Amino acid sequence: MLSTKFAIPDVIFGRGAITHLAQCAKRVGAQRVFFVSDKGVEDAGWVGLVKGILRANGLECVYFNDVNSNPRDTQVQQGVEAYREGECDVVVAIGGGSPMDAAKGIATIVGNGGEIRDYEGANRIMRPLPPMIFIPSTAGSSSDISQFCIITDIKRRVKMSIISRSLVPGISIIDPQLLVTQDRSLILASGIDALAHAIESYVSRLASPFTELHARNAIRLIIDNLIPAAEDKDIQALEQLSIASTSAGMSFSNAGLGDLHALAHALGGVCDVLHGWVHPTLLPSVMRYNMPSCMAKMGDIGRLIALTDTASDREAAHMGIERLERLFGELNLNTKLRELVPEKSDLEQICATATYDACHLTNPRPASAEDLMSICEEAW
Amino acid sequence: MLSTKFAIPDVIFGRGAITHLAQCAKRVGAQRVFFVSDKGVEDAGWVGLVKGILRANGLECVYFNDVNSNPRDTQVQQGVEAYREGECDVVVAIGGGSPMDAAKGIATIVGNGGEIRDYEGANRIMRPLPPMIFIPSTAGSSSDISQFCIITDIKRRVKMSIISRSLVPGISIIDPQLLVTQDRSLILASGIDALAHAIESYVSRLASPFTELHARNAIRLIIDNLIPAAEDKDIQALEQLSIASTSAGMSFSNAGLGDLHALAHALGGVCDVLHGWVHPTLLPSVMRYNMPSCMAKMGDIGRLIALTDTASDREAAHMGIERLERLFGELNLNTKLRELVPEKSDLEQICATATYDACHLTNPRPASAEDLMSICEEAW
Repeated sequence: MLSTKFAIPDVIFGRGAITHLAQCAKRVGAQRVFFVSDKGVEDAGWVGLVKGILRANGLECVYFNDVNSNPRDTQVQQGVEAYREGECDVVVAIGGGSPMDAAKGIATIVGNGGEIRDYEGANRIMRPLPPMIFIPSTAGSSSDISQFCIITDIKRRVKMSIISRSLVPGISIIDPQLLVTQDRSLILASGIDALAHAIESYVSRLASPFTELHARNAIRLIIDNLIPAAEDKDIQALEQLSIASTSAGMSFSNAGLGDLHALAHALGGVCDVLHGWVHPTLLPSVMRYNMPSCMAKMGDIGRLIALTDTASDREAAHMGIERLERLFGELNLNTKLRELVPEKSDLEQICATATYDACHLTNPRPASAEDLMSICEEAW
Repeated sequence: MLSTKFAIPDVIFGRGAITHLAQCAKRVGAQRVFFVSDKGVEDAGWVGLVKGILRANGLECVYFNDVNSNPRDTQVQQGVEAYREGECDVVVAIGGGSPMDAAKGIATIVGNGGEIRDYEGANRIMRPLPPMIFIPSTAGSSSDISQFCIITDIKRRVKMSIISRSLVPGISIIDPQLLVTQDRSLILASGIDALAHAIESYVSRLASPFTELHARNAIRLIIDNLIPAAEDKDIQALEQLSIASTSAGMSFSNAGLGDLHALAHALGGVCDVLHGWVHPTLLPSVMRYNMPSCMAKMGDIGRLIALTDTASDREAAHMGIERLERLFGELNLNTKLRELVPEKSDLEQICATATYDACHLTNPRPASAEDLMSICEEAW
């Protein structure tokens, strides 16, 4: 076994956890909070709640909401200017992956200077960031847990993966009550993203006993709770998805991901699709491709997904993939890559770009651009 | 569900992980390391190895080894003087719970002044400690993971529980290769301590889904690996115990412990017994006492320990306790409290002291000094 690392933020978890925000902000020295969110979270009422909590506790706040899904380098730059102008000292973000990743990008430049593209790849952030406190409003991206930050480079049409220990926030406040304002579509896209994080990190080259424990926990909980959470907005099921997403985050943040995410990032740079909707089109094909390199682990995954106790890893692995395909069908999700990518001729560029993504490095089976092309052909 | 917290150090895990020490020390700004260990670890050769690593990387080092098992307030004070005299900036400790707890006590005073008894109880440390990097040489205490520090107050004859987020080291370097120099007795005492951490924290009043996951993982791994690790020094089994102890630490550090540890600390203040040897005498009786308040969880524990899938929680819980008693018997461990406590008349004082221990607060079933006395009577 190689040496592995396992690093996570301080996690405050539970219904009502958001009320601890001001205390946490003061603990890390806040006087003027830079607060990042987006219009969807505003409409759900959570931005007002956070502003109220900060105000009631004597904390000033500069609010920034110019963030769309798949946040852009230009938006990060605008945030940096707002942070500097506001003379802020701590970054708070509430939302899904987009506001949290935008906040990470802003904190990176505030602490290190330059432009966000200077930090693309792994371990390129050298100086400390201002303290970050994140509050997820979806159960999926786990940006509140992870050392990942994904920002779109508009000119190059590339979603950059930026990975650094410094990008793990100091504190993650996870309040499952926030999940009730999501619609069915967002619950599913987020939950399936968390499932993809768990599956890819479980078979990653950098997996450790601690990441594996959390990955298995996440897979089991998502399979049990995704449908009641999405179809009935069952609060117990949403809470379990929140635990699952957090476990998946603890896993992939430390173990890394694989070629599903490498492809999803490359694809997201070309077409502005919600990240979670890429997985139903590509996940089964990537799992089939990787199977020969990690049959025992694919067997574990299959047993968790298909609720089987068959002793054969190969049989369990196939049963798991087939069960996933049926699940995506029952949920009426698009499983055809051609519905996402405008022109089939874009695939070549997407596959070439994916081989440069940091997630490609931890995929369990080596893959050339041609191998990725064959995966995309199968999923087309 | 109440809001719960989950905070751990950065963990570097794996055979050979110790070689990352100098890099970690430099990352937290070390120039002059205050290095704590004890004579047992010196004899095993690990102190020399650490000194060599530090020296080879240009780090100066002040070495302190005046630590015995159940470290004392007077030793902490001597360490503080040595730290100040040496003008050190980072604390490194290698060993079992004793050197690591002594190092925590020293760091507390260096950062906060006063005497160590000023910080007895929960959340009484207000100012930052120097960075701490710990390397466990046993798989049991998990002081390298936890926010606990246990120091004996010599005058009062009390083992003080000091609990604070500030006592979680910045970095824990866990190298399972270090475990091979332990003898059978130390492997067992440490492994059973880790098992007790997992069991008590699983049923604690502050347990969360994340602590529960790690507690279950620890119980399962210890039951599978304790005998081959202790009897054959099987390196794979020792590595699994190392994972188990780390998981148990992540659990109890955040969920807290219970009356087994409250009693063990009170008892340890009166008689200088190796901490792990208290558990075989008291654990079954404490579990029986707690059962009515947490039957479902005691059922989970029973199923993990007795490897049964019976649906009845009560039946599984009893099977688990009986299996534990058989295990302690097969290992020829003392299970009679009277072998540890010199005079039966000491029990009254021990039980009274235990009700003031911080671990008493998270026991799942309320217990008066008289209730604790009945537990001790059963275990006598």
